[in-house]
Amino acid sequence: MTYQLYYWPGLQGRGEFVRLALEEAGADYVDVARLARERGGGAGGLMKVMADRSQPFAPFAPPFLKDGALTVSQTANILAYLAPRLGLAPEGEARRVFAAGLQLTIADMVAEAHDTHHPIAGSLYYEDQKEAAKARSTDFIANRISKYMGYFERVLRRNPDGPEHAVGDSLTTVDLSLYQLVAGLTYAFPCGMAPFTEACPLLFRLCDAVQTRPNIAAYLASDRRIPFNESGIFRRYPELDQDGTWTVEAA
Amino acid sequence: MTYQLYYWPGLQGRGEFVRLALEEAGADYVDVARLARERGGGAGGLMKVMADRSQPFAPFAPPFLKDGALTVSQTANILAYLAPRLGLAPEGEARRVFAAGLQLTIADMVAEAHDTHHPIAGSLYYEDQKEAAKARSTDFIANRISKYMGYFERVLRRNPDGPEHAVGDSLTTVDLSLYQLVAGLTYAFPCGMAPFTEACPLLFRLCDAVQTRPNIAAYLASDRRIPFNESGIFRRYPELDQDGTWTVEAA
Repeated sequence: MTYQLYYWPGLQGRGEFVRLALEEAGADYVDVARLARERGGGAGGLMKVMADRSQPFAPFAPPFLKDGALTVSQTANILAYLAPRLGLAPEGEARRVFAAGLQLTIADMVAEAHDTHHPIAGSLYYEDQKEAAKARSTDFIANRISKYMGYFERVLRRNPDGPEHAVGDSLTTVDLSLYQLVAGLTYAFPCGMAPFTEACPLLFRLCDAVQTRPNIAAYLASDRRIPFNESGIFRRYPELDQDGTWTVEAA
Repeated sequence: MTYQLYYWPGLQGRGEFVRLALEEAGADYVDVARLARERGGGAGGLMKVMADRSQPFAPFAPPFLKDGALTVSQTANILAYLAPRLGLAPEGEARRVFAAGLQLTIADMVAEAHDTHHPIAGSLYYEDQKEAAKARSTDFIANRISKYMGYFERVLRRNPDGPEHAVGDSLTTVDLSLYQLVAGLTYAFPCGMAPFTEACPLLFRLCDAVQTRPNIAAYLASDRRIPFNESGIFRRYPELDQDGTWTVEAA
């Protein structure tokens, strides 16, 4: 059965966390909104599916995944559904439950990263909330990046199965999502993220390992990988970036 | 086995979504931070557990739940873990997957409700971000409440098992969480929420049904239920409230 991924065309966004899992596994999937318009693609096609009021189990927002008659919404929920099917789930309940918690912690940081450029309202342009965006980004770089990166580095360091993976001894969706998170933050805040290459060596080693996996490397080099851009979650607005700080208490 | 819930004392916060599930089911649990200090309670006891760097599967933030040797973090993940154990999960994969998506959509709205009073930084006082808080609250009331409430009302209306529950034909953690969400929003934004009593009759009927269930009613009347206050997620700052609008396109 071909998985159908529904997400906005033209940006990585939250859909990218799902794409990376599907691509790593070599899964059979269609990125529906990127099809030609006559085949149901484009933002219009996506909105039509969203507006179908006959669906009982309708999603609130993209991304969502259709697997036959089943609809799965919310990034972390989609990944929890796909992981065991794609061989990207850890073994055993303790590790699965921990992986699910990590996936949601990543989702929290993604939402915070989005709000650095849209702290007031998604319905307003960035240009109309620039002052608040600067204030929120300043706090994000000073306090939040360090707190999250320090946590993920600790997770790797303390992994009883070894520091090559966030959970267990093989690749999971959490590893793939950490790669995407670090790549996105580094795109958006090159100065803010600079100290972490040294401060979080295990995390950056994991990211290198992910991006050189054959299926991921091929995907990243393909035109299926939409470049980071200023429509996505991670946006490079140089005026929001500033030197990052690594605080020892996060270690 | 007694469940141990770890959450900040003195506020409902995200911990309340877990408490409601445990209370409805009459589960054996301890709200650890509310114990006396000599028994490991208080914020200090919580922070000591958080700071224990010997734990391999450490949570990023409260709430988290200990069930024997297992630690479960993130509200939606805790509820997904507890639901089948407490008889609060729907039957079948389609409904379980949909319930998990709803639980995460509720979590998203909770985070947005929090950011109405802290749009710039959790590390700053509300008083130091009041202007941005007013702007964010204005958008939240004008656009977000309507969008979310309209969605949840539709979910109830379209439930193939009947409009008494969000998913399936019996009470789930989603119903309990919707009650808490609506109660919190109504506390924080009495004017902003006013139109929805009429616009979302199924949602408010569900909330009434939840709060009159014997175990929930007993809990709400007990001193285990911390009153809403201005340390929590849902805060009543009258200057942030304004008349709500119900837009037809959300119907």
